[in-house]
Amino acid sequence: MIYFHSDYGQGAHPKVMEALNKTNLEYTDGYGIDPHCERAAGIIKELIGIDDCEVHFFVGGTPCNVTLISAALKPYEAAIAARTGHIYVHETGGVEATGHRIVALEGVNGKLTPDNISQAYSEYQDEHTAIPKLVYLSQSTEIGSIYSKAELTAIRNKCDEFGMLLYMDGARLGTALTSSSNDLSIRDIASMCDAFYIGGTKNGALFGEALVVKNAAVNDHFRWMMKRQAGILAKGRLLGVQFEALLEGGENSVYYQIAEHSNRLAYKLRDGLLELGIRFYSDSPTNQIFPILPKEAINELRRDFFFYDWASPESNMQPVRLVTSWGTTDADVDAFLDALRKLI
Amino acid sequence: MIYFHSDYGQGAHPKVMEALNKTNLEYTDGYGIDPHCERAAGIIKELIGIDDCEVHFFVGGTPCNVTLISAALKPYEAAIAARTGHIYVHETGGVEATGHRIVALEGVNGKLTPDNISQAYSEYQDEHTAIPKLVYLSQSTEIGSIYSKAELTAIRNKCDEFGMLLYMDGARLGTALTSSSNDLSIRDIASMCDAFYIGGTKNGALFGEALVVKNAAVNDHFRWMMKRQAGILAKGRLLGVQFEALLEGGENSVYYQIAEHSNRLAYKLRDGLLELGIRFYSDSPTNQIFPILPKEAINELRRDFFFYDWASPESNMQPVRLVTSWGTTDADVDAFLDALRKLI
Amino acid sequence: MIYFHSDYGQGAHPKVMEALNKTNLEYTDGYGIDPHCERAAGIIKELIGIDDCEVHFFVGGTPCNVTLISAALKPYEAAIAARTGHIYVHETGGVEATGHRIVALEGVNGKLTPDNISQAYSEYQDEHTAIPKLVYLSQSTEIGSIYSKAELTAIRNKCDEFGMLLYMDGARLGTALTSSSNDLSIRDIASMCDAFYIGGTKNGALFGEALVVKNAAVNDHFRWMMKRQAGILAKGRLLGVQFEALLEGGENSVYYQIAEHSNRLAYKLRDGLLELGIRFYSDSPTNQIFPILPKEAINELRRDFFFYDWASPESNMQPVRLVTSWGTTDADVDAFLDALRKLI
Amino acid sequence: MIYFHSDYGQGAHPKVMEALNKTNLEYTDGYGIDPHCERAAGIIKELIGIDDCEVHFFVGGTPCNVTLISAALKPYEAAIAARTGHIYVHETGGVEATGHRIVALEGVNGKLTPDNISQAYSEYQDEHTAIPKLVYLSQSTEIGSIYSKAELTAIRNKCDEFGMLLYMDGARLGTALTSSSNDLSIRDIASMCDAFYIGGTKNGALFGEALVVKNAAVNDHFRWMMKRQAGILAKGRLLGVQFEALLEGGENSVYYQIAEHSNRLAYKLRDGLLELGIRFYSDSPTNQIFPILPKEAINELRRDFFFYDWASPESNMQPVRLVTSWGTTDADVDAFLDALRKLI
Repeated sequence: MIYFHSDYGQGAHPKVMEALNKTNLEYTDGYGIDPHCERAAGIIKELIGIDDCEVHFFVGGTPCNVTLISAALKPYEAAIAARTGHIYVHETGGVEATGHRIVALEGVNGKLTPDNISQAYSEYQDEHTAIPKLVYLSQSTEIGSIYSKAELTAIRNKCDEFGMLLYMDGARLGTALTSSSNDLSIRDIASMCDAFYIGGTKNGALFGEALVVKNAAVNDHFRWMMKRQAGILAKGRLLGVQFEALLEGGENSVYYQIAEHSNRLAYKLRDGLLELGIRFYSDSPTNQIFPILPKEAINELRRDFFFYDWASPESNMQPVRLVTSWGTTDADVDAFLDALRKLI
Repeated sequence: MIYFHSDYGQGAHPKVMEALNKTNLEYTDGYGIDPHCERAAGIIKELIGIDDCEVHFFVGGTPCNVTLISAALKPYEAAIAARTGHIYVHETGGVEATGHRIVALEGVNGKLTPDNISQAYSEYQDEHTAIPKLVYLSQSTEIGSIYSKAELTAIRNKCDEFGMLLYMDGARLGTALTSSSNDLSIRDIASMCDAFYIGGTKNGALFGEALVVKNAAVNDHFRWMMKRQAGILAKGRLLGVQFEALLEGGENSVYYQIAEHSNRLAYKLRDGLLELGIRFYSDSPTNQIFPILPKEAINELRRDFFFYDWASPESNMQPVRLVTSWGTTDADVDAFLDALRKLI
Repeated sequence: MIYFHSDYGQGAHPKVMEALNKTNLEYTDGYGIDPHCERAAGIIKELIGIDDCEVHFFVGGTPCNVTLISAALKPYEAAIAARTGHIYVHETGGVEATGHRIVALEGVNGKLTPDNISQAYSEYQDEHTAIPKLVYLSQSTEIGSIYSKAELTAIRNKCDEFGMLLYMDGARLGTALTSSSNDLSIRDIASMCDAFYIGGTKNGALFGEALVVKNAAVNDHFRWMMKRQAGILAKGRLLGVQFEALLEGGENSVYYQIAEHSNRLAYKLRDGLLELGIRFYSDSPTNQIFPILPKEAINELRRDFFFYDWASPESNMQPVRLVTSWGTTDADVDAFLDALRKLI
Repeated sequence: MIYFHSDYGQGAHPKVMEALNKTNLEYTDGYGIDPHCERAAGIIKELIGIDDCEVHFFVGGTPCNVTLISAALKPYEAAIAARTGHIYVHETGGVEATGHRIVALEGVNGKLTPDNISQAYSEYQDEHTAIPKLVYLSQSTEIGSIYSKAELTAIRNKCDEFGMLLYMDGARLGTALTSSSNDLSIRDIASMCDAFYIGGTKNGALFGEALVVKNAAVNDHFRWMMKRQAGILAKGRLLGVQFEALLEGGENSVYYQIAEHSNRLAYKLRDGLLELGIRFYSDSPTNQIFPILPKEAINELRRDFFFYDWASPESNMQPVRLVTSWGTTDADVDAFLDALRKLI
């Protein structure tokens, strides 16, 4: 079986496992107060060119999102997100569980627009309405698209206009940063966002996300919020160790290499599909692509390939999601294209 | 000054005050366990033709909505509402404060459609998504429109199809029931909804809403939920006394008379405005109407009449909201129409 | 039947009803933004001698407590209360429903001690523990006792030592202020507490509590918190009208007169019981007293008098709660003492 | 430096790391729906001798506790715990963050008593009070003590008497099961508790706890609760892999061996300390012991040994906590005893 179902279907990239094995018998304090987390935070601060910030490590994107949003908002404040945003569609109301509304808006190609933000603000009136206060977006988005520098700048400007915070979910930040269509460096992102995270789970870590928070008010007692949200790992140094292994070397690090590899194979797959005349559900320059395939072909492909349907079918055509990762090989892609070629 | 700003701008209808005065020196137990609440509940059960239900009294619509919804939903379940629904636009995230999402959808003329419900259900996938479980709608709606029997039946059918509960916010149930366009009796409503409330505050009470809950699972420990949500009034009998005064006599009661009076004067106002060539922001057959007036005329009218703007202006035309109530007189309406006639 | 079961068994004091009747047909804006609330707030500010504060009106003590506490605390902070405190024993977890712990401690005679506060603080360690941040106390307490000036000062000092806020639940503030044992003026209380409320429901109002908040951080967006907690009454002016009627005249007002009357009759009852050799469950100088009576006598008394048991019996002796109010008469007290005299 | 500061100071036991390395390149589905989790659950069901239950895996004790408790309780229900219980002292109000009270009681030697449960129940009255519904206890406790079979049976009986659920936090279940003082098998525990977890983090896992839930109502939609509480790990199979490695072989498994080893060295340390005339803060037959040492000796010891103070000092004597684990050696213990011998 060849797997295109997700970028977290295997364990960790070998370099990450190596680091975990190497440090396994070390003794450290728990809960993220240890030399590895400190060193990983230092690497991140250097990479983003900002020292006046805090770096917090989480085991996954959902605890990271929920904790950051609940720490950033007062009880009567709300987050704004695209209707396709992870916090709205895949966290079972985790944000609302902390007492906060998500104002969900349509967006375009999986991305929130400046007009969305204006709409959310226009719905706000006075003490009878929750205040939209934080803009949540994902880079790359849940359907593979990415924000350009111009788009992110326009959103930042809207946030400034309405006094809102900007938070980026970087579960797949790696493939966005290394996309051939990208014009946003991690320093651009860090300078424009109040908070964002560098996703590890979907880019080579066994698990883990590194959250960067610049806003002092949000950082106040942030570890109390983390613990209250059950988001501190006992052996916190495991997160530090992994991010050291991933990010050492900055833009030449294993993290960037993994993302480039994933993108390269996604492009190869996409280009091969385009040659076969296949259309796509979304415009994605990253490691998730969404070809629309005939249902009969899908049924045949499933004998040798594992992947998921995505969105609703139109008559006998079904969008599917194909995801590449550090473990995907050229041979995997060739095999898929060969198999499909015979079916259509 | 003549007032069209709301249907809760005065105290209580004289019949309600009379009842409160008359019973003032009585001694009773507190918290709604008293003969007046019991009797009011009995009157309601007779009016709706259902005995197997519970009646709970609240001081206002927001505590009633928040308590009912949080009692009806499991932590991972969500409510569905029109984007104009009171719980979404005018309760400052009170529902989310109890940990539940509101899935907010566009609706048509202030009303939720069966398609909205299907859309909400289609967004639900599995344990990664909150389950849309309760449909919230208002009768009459926040912009004065009402659901027909056919529309409510179609929504009930959707609820049955998807295993959802149906809850009606009846803050302005009176003017819906007595609207000349209405074909839904209170018995129809009671038979189709799992829960609904008969609004007092906006129809003659000093304050108070009577919530009817048919669903046994929702009724389980409902008073614990009321108290936890700070929704039990110490001198609860005040609510019973008022609903006795309002609803004694059923469809011939003071409650129905107040609503008919409010509607009659709203129609008189609407018809007068139509004669003057005025257009309206929504199609309302109840006591809230939304004419679109020239801004200059509005400025002049404001010298003698109190009312609010509604929604955004288009160039020099501004929608306003005019509301009639038990205290509104024919002379009030004539005065408004006369004043406007001179201004346009 | 003669009633000693509570101080909220009747409607409102006649002066309050008179004010409600007199203003009933006035038109005002809703939600507490009206001339009556403004005027009542002014009377209160003058009475307490503090202008730099905000006054918010609630329909009851529970919504007042829950809103104030959730507005005062960050998500990871907790309130400290006596185990007999209203928020711990009679609000069904309303405070916890907003995500905050109540650190419940034994206290002495219903009162929190400075040592209690030290204990709560000593349990706090670091980011793994909720921070005890607000001290909640009731004046008079749930078992009738009152804090002396020395006691309240010592608690205020502990709050200052540990950086805590001090909040007083004044559901029965009237009978504390007018107790023959009291040495705390309302100005003392206002100067020592960060927030406190003047209870109306149990001292002559139909319903209503007037919350005074001095702390600027707590006042920030307080009305958003009120609405989110479903705590704003639509016809908010009803609260203003009642507090005008109760507090006009300050220490000579109806409010103080009602409390003095209640206390006088409680003392008459207590002294009569002492003459009969009755012992008491708590030391109460206010309008709730807790005599311990033989069960057979209680059974006989219940034919003509309505009152509740309190706490657990010791063999055939049962503590009961007797409460006096503005409606209690000398004849009521005499009748009770006469009846008891014949039974023991 | 020699470490006695915790049982989670190192990475994973070598057998666990071996399993993670060996399975690293496998592809599986995410979120705990994979063959490893299924197999680990099977091993656990066999070990406890109960098939009609569900096993859920968490990355840590706090998310496990918070999710189980919030899934087990209705909004108006509360948990009962010893004041030293982990959920009360070390989770920053995580349980309260889900809207539930913890009724915290004194306990004896870190253990809840049947009388504690009766007290909590006696505080409950009616709809004005939160209902104490779930008893939380830790085995072994936070201060190393363990419940005997008689004690746990008595608590189970109290739960049955009052209609409560019984939940055991097994963060250190291993050292309890293998304690020389223990008379409770894991089958006894499983038969008496409605839910309990087998702690991995503190007994050889890199991270992870295996929660067993027998109660059908609690299991209903449990994965929705897990996700809502941000408690599902993306690469969930990591948890399955670890528990396979730990529990394969049941009572002869690595898990039991690790715990026996930890206990053996704790006893050696304890006996050595007793020989030196040292007194202890608590009575602990497991891998956490709490000797009371002279402060000057502590200062010297800290040059070569890492451990924490525990509780408050009495004059110049300070209780400290010494913890043994799978990584502790006989030489570590000998070195500590030798060093102390020279200091006293």
